[in-house]
Amino acid sequence: MTPKAIILLSGGLDSATTLAVAQSQGYDCYALSIDYGQRHRIELQAAQKIAGSLGAIEHKVIQFDLTTLGGSALTDPTIDIPISGPGNTIPTTYVPARNTLFLTLALAWAEVLITPHIFIGVNAIDYSGYPDCRPEFITAFENMANLATRSGLQGPPFKIHTPLIQLTKAQIIQWGLELGVDYRLTVSCYQPNSQGNACGLCDACRFRAQGFQALGIPDPTTYKEEPPEPFSPLTALS
Amino acid sequence: MTPKAIILLSGGLDSATTLAVAQSQGYDCYALSIDYGQRHRIELQAAQKIAGSLGAIEHKVIQFDLTTLGGSALTDPTIDIPISGPGNTIPTTYVPARNTLFLTLALAWAEVLITPHIFIGVNAIDYSGYPDCRPEFITAFENMANLATRSGLQGPPFKIHTPLIQLTKAQIIQWGLELGVDYRLTVSCYQPNSQGNACGLCDACRFRAQGFQALGIPDPTTYKEEPPEPFSPLTALS
Repeated sequence: MTPKAIILLSGGLDSATTLAVAQSQGYDCYALSIDYGQRHRIELQAAQKIAGSLGAIEHKVIQFDLTTLGGSALTDPTIDIPISGPGNTIPTTYVPARNTLFLTLALAWAEVLITPHIFIGVNAIDYSGYPDCRPEFITAFENMANLATRSGLQGPPFKIHTPLIQLTKAQIIQWGLELGVDYRLTVSCYQPNSQGNACGLCDACRFRAQGFQALGIPDPTTYKEEPPEPFSPLTALS
Repeated sequence: MTPKAIILLSGGLDSATTLAVAQSQGYDCYALSIDYGQRHRIELQAAQKIAGSLGAIEHKVIQFDLTTLGGSALTDPTIDIPISGPGNTIPTTYVPARNTLFLTLALAWAEVLITPHIFIGVNAIDYSGYPDCRPEFITAFENMANLATRSGLQGPPFKIHTPLIQLTKAQIIQWGLELGVDYRLTVSCYQPNSQGNACGLCDACRFRAQGFQALGIPDPTTYKEEPPEPFSPLTALS
């Protein structure tokens, strides 16, 4: 029987590539997107197109409203999205406990589908320094998940697959292109307009542009105005 | 400055007692309830009354729909609530990843309020054998939370307070009565009617009745029909 896997699919470049990787490894893929009240809502439409394009068995969107908690530029319209490029601190686009929440919803669905496999496209190389993108967080989540759940007690243990975690953005894009990912469908920008045109200024735009530039391949992203100036990669917070 | 704490408040006996304990320990209490599509929706009204009665600074209800995932008698009306009393297996009232999800939402709010203190009324003595009520789960969650979050990195570390975890139901009720908890406001039953009258048959009803009976105190619960027959406590799954 083909093994099943849950793939967290935001609609961005990394999660689309992760879905393609899971497909290429022979899993029946169940894509999960979370509508948490993010400002860049067009990424949910992108997720739907990507799930269809890459042949996911099912695509589920779970809605809930993190705007009621606030605390992030991605959910609170009164906090500006930073456009200065990443520094040495965690930026205001950090959403409190975001990946913990996403992985927990994936965990709940994995229990219902009776599969131990969950994929998430976190990356600790070309990234904004979010703590919940680091390998030590993933290991701790896995350990917790196996103590938290009926499936974890009865085995096999949960496995959080992070195929992109140690890759540069350029390596991710190259792998995705080899697997047939259509990056025109993906939205990386934190503040795209309603047509999905990117700002070219936020961290997510810059990391993406840098990846395509390093490969010498044109990025199919359409911008509101000018394409971004790439910048040097930020290394993982220690 | 008075320290703040998030208290997960379901509307049942244990979480009401936990809120009273946190208050008695000098915290400014922020109560959090989760509307996850549970069948026993009257517990959310109960939570609101309890938060008011015990002087919580704020009571927030986060809505999202776990019925879309299913897999539990508490969220899927096609699965019967078991009435045979607990056995040696995890019952169908187990909600996949429930406490992980609740603690994660509490964690997100704790980050926004800038406090490391979270209270949850889990109990591993008179309980139904849910894996996410055990001390080893709580420790693993705490460890994960400190790696997952900005607050965890910057310290002080998160502390998940579980004041009831090693108490019998009778000890919990006795403590709550000493702290002035009005147990008339609490709803324990998994399938109460719209007036909040309890079934007297489900595990939650039975554990509660057993606790009051052991103390020789009348339970203020109103039942649809007959009060339940208590049963012997189930010990924690090993």
